[in-house]
Amino acid sequence: MTATAAHDSGTAAMAALIGRVREVKLLESTASVLGWDQETMMPEGGVEWRSAQLAHLARLSHQTFTSTQTGDLIAAAMDAVAGLPEDHPDRVDVREIDRDWRKATRLPEALVSELAELSSKAMHEWAAARQANDFPRFQPWLERTVELNRQKAECLGWPAGGEPWDALADSYEPGLAAVEMQAVFEPLRKRLQGLLDRLRGAPRRPSNGFNEHALALADQERFVKFVARRIGFDFSRGRLDRSTHPFCGGSHCNDVRMTTRYLETCVLDALGSTMHEAGHGMYEQGLSAERIGLPMGEAAGLSVHESQSRLWENQVGRSRAFWTWAQGQLPAFFGEACDRFSLQDLVDGANVVEPGFIRVEADEGTYNMHVMIRFELERAMIKGDLKVADLPGVWNGLYKDFLGLTVPDDRRGCLQDVHWSMGAIGYFPTYTLGTLLAAQLFEKARTDLPGLEEGFTRGDFSPLLGWLRKNVHAEGRRHRLDGLCRKVTGKPLSADPLMRHLEGKLLPLYGLA
Amino acid sequence: MTATAAHDSGTAAMAALIGRVREVKLLESTASVLGWDQETMMPEGGVEWRSAQLAHLARLSHQTFTSTQTGDLIAAAMDAVAGLPEDHPDRVDVREIDRDWRKATRLPEALVSELAELSSKAMHEWAAARQANDFPRFQPWLERTVELNRQKAECLGWPAGGEPWDALADSYEPGLAAVEMQAVFEPLRKRLQGLLDRLRGAPRRPSNGFNEHALALADQERFVKFVARRIGFDFSRGRLDRSTHPFCGGSHCNDVRMTTRYLETCVLDALGSTMHEAGHGMYEQGLSAERIGLPMGEAAGLSVHESQSRLWENQVGRSRAFWTWAQGQLPAFFGEACDRFSLQDLVDGANVVEPGFIRVEADEGTYNMHVMIRFELERAMIKGDLKVADLPGVWNGLYKDFLGLTVPDDRRGCLQDVHWSMGAIGYFPTYTLGTLLAAQLFEKARTDLPGLEEGFTRGDFSPLLGWLRKNVHAEGRRHRLDGLCRKVTGKPLSADPLMRHLEGKLLPLYGLA
Repeated sequence: MTATAAHDSGTAAMAALIGRVREVKLLESTASVLGWDQETMMPEGGVEWRSAQLAHLARLSHQTFTSTQTGDLIAAAMDAVAGLPEDHPDRVDVREIDRDWRKATRLPEALVSELAELSSKAMHEWAAARQANDFPRFQPWLERTVELNRQKAECLGWPAGGEPWDALADSYEPGLAAVEMQAVFEPLRKRLQGLLDRLRGAPRRPSNGFNEHALALADQERFVKFVARRIGFDFSRGRLDRSTHPFCGGSHCNDVRMTTRYLETCVLDALGSTMHEAGHGMYEQGLSAERIGLPMGEAAGLSVHESQSRLWENQVGRSRAFWTWAQGQLPAFFGEACDRFSLQDLVDGANVVEPGFIRVEADEGTYNMHVMIRFELERAMIKGDLKVADLPGVWNGLYKDFLGLTVPDDRRGCLQDVHWSMGAIGYFPTYTLGTLLAAQLFEKARTDLPGLEEGFTRGDFSPLLGWLRKNVHAEGRRHRLDGLCRKVTGKPLSADPLMRHLEGKLLPLYGLA
Repeated sequence: MTATAAHDSGTAAMAALIGRVREVKLLESTASVLGWDQETMMPEGGVEWRSAQLAHLARLSHQTFTSTQTGDLIAAAMDAVAGLPEDHPDRVDVREIDRDWRKATRLPEALVSELAELSSKAMHEWAAARQANDFPRFQPWLERTVELNRQKAECLGWPAGGEPWDALADSYEPGLAAVEMQAVFEPLRKRLQGLLDRLRGAPRRPSNGFNEHALALADQERFVKFVARRIGFDFSRGRLDRSTHPFCGGSHCNDVRMTTRYLETCVLDALGSTMHEAGHGMYEQGLSAERIGLPMGEAAGLSVHESQSRLWENQVGRSRAFWTWAQGQLPAFFGEACDRFSLQDLVDGANVVEPGFIRVEADEGTYNMHVMIRFELERAMIKGDLKVADLPGVWNGLYKDFLGLTVPDDRRGCLQDVHWSMGAIGYFPTYTLGTLLAAQLFEKARTDLPGLEEGFTRGDFSPLLGWLRKNVHAEGRRHRLDGLCRKVTGKPLSADPLMRHLEGKLLPLYGLA
């Protein structure tokens, strides 16, 4: 074979693999639009058939992807890219497709399809059970979800010394193990507890007034859309709707669908959740349109995803610099209704630390405690150490232990999150890993971009987005979490930047520095 | 084989066929939700990928349906139902599935997928071209659409003595032929022209005041949703949204998505289009949930579909009885804004006859003229007698000829309808066939249900819906248009009931009787 012929056949092998993977992505992204539709638009009567549609799409994409033909295409493409540098986009694509394929081929089609069907129905049942504060209604659905996820873990397998939870977590954060997570959580809990103890006895208490101030929902909606656009979410390639549980989904980088929800008494709730989802959304929009469906056009994992949402929600959205700008925007949306709040009131409102029952409403100081509780519980359920029937009691015990709270009902307890109903077990810890990475990335961005926060005070967020586009979004799945963190910040992932961020902001606010 | 074993294998053969057809319906209904989403929700950036999704779904459902396996399942099921009466639901299902399969197998997969992709893109281009009043922008898309539809017609074939248009129309109205349609249109045009001539010289002119009265769009939206619910559209199994071109789509009988649009100056436009789409929607909701995807759970054809929409829009929505009730509802939605209009003003507004450029805004007297014009044009384009480039000129000539109007621009001319951009050629005449059937069905319902219109004056529409459920919706695809008409009304489809309806209402309104 001449060199040119080899190149051509290499190109042909890549093209054939890309064509196959693109077909899978067409189906997966279709399912994703249907999932968004189910949560935002679908009339109630549609649940049964929707579950069947999703099950069928899951079956078809699994069939297409796991076929031996796909395996042959991967093998041929692997030969074709063998001469390229390890971090060449084509080589990364083949490496990650191969990883995905090996995982997927371990799962029987029937299990994949049953999980898709179950999750569509269970989400519906969860929403009804949560509204009715009726855990027993949800219990059989969660039992089945745990059962199928245990089967899934058995099929996938886990490294020696690990446990079933690891097999599931790997889908959200490649290579993540429960013992490793525990090693992050234990010291973090102590450091956070230390901070919370100091704040409890502090001489100053930030004003909560702005969080108790009712504002019309339609005005809130216009305001948070304005902020989302201003920080960089592109509405010609995305939407913002309402749903019970805020999320970011959609089809691909040019069609990103995020949702939020509105509480009359707290625009900061809608704003925080919108900036959070916009962080996810801008990551998605920053992925390569040329590589839709290919690993180099996909997010690096859920922790990195969460770093983007937490960064915009916390490092930006709770900063004095952001509010210096945002305060001036309020009259255009709320008239005189916010005039009586000073800049300090707004910064205070965004940063009050107060243990609460609801994770998605939690402040930065207590947020990770909520995650730790869920990690313990899901790990035990999957291991078989905790029966689903016992979940409410154990949940409530942990809230007492971690946050000193007595959970009043399951609606504000173990029924609050959508994740387990979606079949997502092993997902929660990525929230904390993402929170750590967000702080670490933001420290580096501040070093790289002098005047960054001064720009925020003028409503200029584009340098930050540009920096994230280049350092994170454009990298696709080239690196794992720790590799990306080292490449961008020069250091392994650590809790130090988060603690510096929290202490640097909260101690002065509480009159402790 | 014993009788029981034969019965079991018959049941098994039916079950196997149903399973296959259900898979196809899962994919088709998914595509339908994506189509709805594209028109109502999808951000602009999503077009390219959405077209690819729809093309892939079309390819997959075509593959699944046209496989030889499906043919074998049909053959086995045919044996299984051979002993049943001809109009038994199972036998009807197999007969119609066989008909669909024979048609579908004549179409190459590549053509099916290209048509789906083209239509998604062309609809997007059409919307942009219409907004910009820019026919040349749309021209290449329409040329390709005509070209692919000619190929489609060649693949499908048509009966001796027919023409290519017949092959396409058969998908919307089984067995419809252009010559037959012409035989309906020619005398109808004369009769309608005679009526229009009489109205033009009439001593009284109905007041147009209510059609020129601005009302807030949000109030209009609440009002038309209220009316849709009251006439029987079930919002727990459907939605009403906004789109440029009103339509009714969705997934299946328990998830029906209709759209409308709002003009500030004319609530009757939104009301008429909502009642029209609700007529379609209630037909869909009236189909059997047990037979989703099977012919006995599907609409009989587009003419029957259109009879349902036209009946609610015209026989109900433009009647004095309806307005006697509706007038009393106006204050709850519009405050005092409509107080100055008498019942006669409202009835007048709903029934003014005035030739106009826009089909979907047309009154009952001129509506069918718009349909005739489109029929002539699409027939000629498919035959090859009319070049797409010449469409605007010929369109405008026909508007002069049929309605005496000089079309001012293509936006109000040949760019006004979505159908051709969707690839739907052969569709328009079903509007007129449905209009004829609507009048004929309503005459019969009035005979069968004494006090029907007296009920309308109290807002009671359920007897009519019940009658349609039983006589039309529950029949699925058991009968063709003419068969259904004969079965329900005892007579072949005729223009007489429509002319009686129009003359009976319009002549008195114009002071001519």
